[in-house]
Amino acid sequence: MTILGVDPGYGILGYGVLEKNGNKIKHITHGVITTTKDIEMPDRLGYIYTEFVKLIDKYSPDVCAIESLFFYNNSKTAIHVGEARGVILLAISQKNIPLKEFTPYQVKNNVTGYGRADKKQVQKMMKILLALDEVPKPDDAADALAVAWCYAVEKAY
Amino acid sequence: MTILGVDPGYGILGYGVLEKNGNKIKHITHGVITTTKDIEMPDRLGYIYTEFVKLIDKYSPDVCAIESLFFYNNSKTAIHVGEARGVILLAISQKNIPLKEFTPYQVKNNVTGYGRADKKQVQKMMKILLALDEVPKPDDAADALAVAWCYAVEKAY
Repeated sequence: MTILGVDPGYGILGYGVLEKNGNKIKHITHGVITTTKDIEMPDRLGYIYTEFVKLIDKYSPDVCAIESLFFYNNSKTAIHVGEARGVILLAISQKNIPLKEFTPYQVKNNVTGYGRADKKQVQKMMKILLALDEVPKPDDAADALAVAWCYAVEKAY
Repeated sequence: MTILGVDPGYGILGYGVLEKNGNKIKHITHGVITTTKDIEMPDRLGYIYTEFVKLIDKYSPDVCAIESLFFYNNSKTAIHVGEARGVILLAISQKNIPLKEFTPYQVKNNVTGYGRADKKQVQKMMKILLALDEVPKPDDAADALAVAWCYAVEKAY
């Protein structure tokens, strides 16, 4: 089973792909889709959508995983992150891929054993759990791998 | 020139279409796209996107207008409104339609002459300004007409 994890954002969107066979979880790829603020928001969203659809077509994920809860001090930031999430969820719906959302607590708990672990610890664990040579970079890609990992090892909560 | 105004939301998305010829501004239509919470968010966004693309294809707007600033007490609400905005902005980008954003202050100022007017006053003015038989319903459709009106009468700020 191929799992595509996503850490949505409009400046940097992280993604990570894992392959699960029985109890084996294998790292396939990770990376980011980036846009710059000199481009108008509709066109940034158009670019994110197009690149994300290419990712889906390239890796044919069986499922997608994304973090579910969000707390922002600034509602303008929340709106723009929501816009990026919107085009990602649209692509997932159009491709009929099942989506599972996880809270930050669930992700941290499944990756480090502690639901209130800090983000650096989560990123470091991705190197260890996936037997990578170094911590996946940038942070957004490591976070996307973590949510994909969360799906791969999911148990009932 | 055909102007499509949008009041984004995921439960109810309002739209309003105006036609501007010289100094004449004519009401074409208004309405809402609605989704219910028993449907998963990706599919709600898929429905909103599909219906909004149909609107664009039906009315061939030359420009779109949308409110720009948002203040929500609850960042979860802000995220979900952002998701709906995201698929609308994506459709506008894909159809290469110029988009203009207006602050709530600008909309109120252009519709009522007072930037801090309340929403009911704005909705009532749409009936008067567009010579309709009654106040456009629901509120989301009236708000969408107001932002389209704002575009139609726009001056430098």
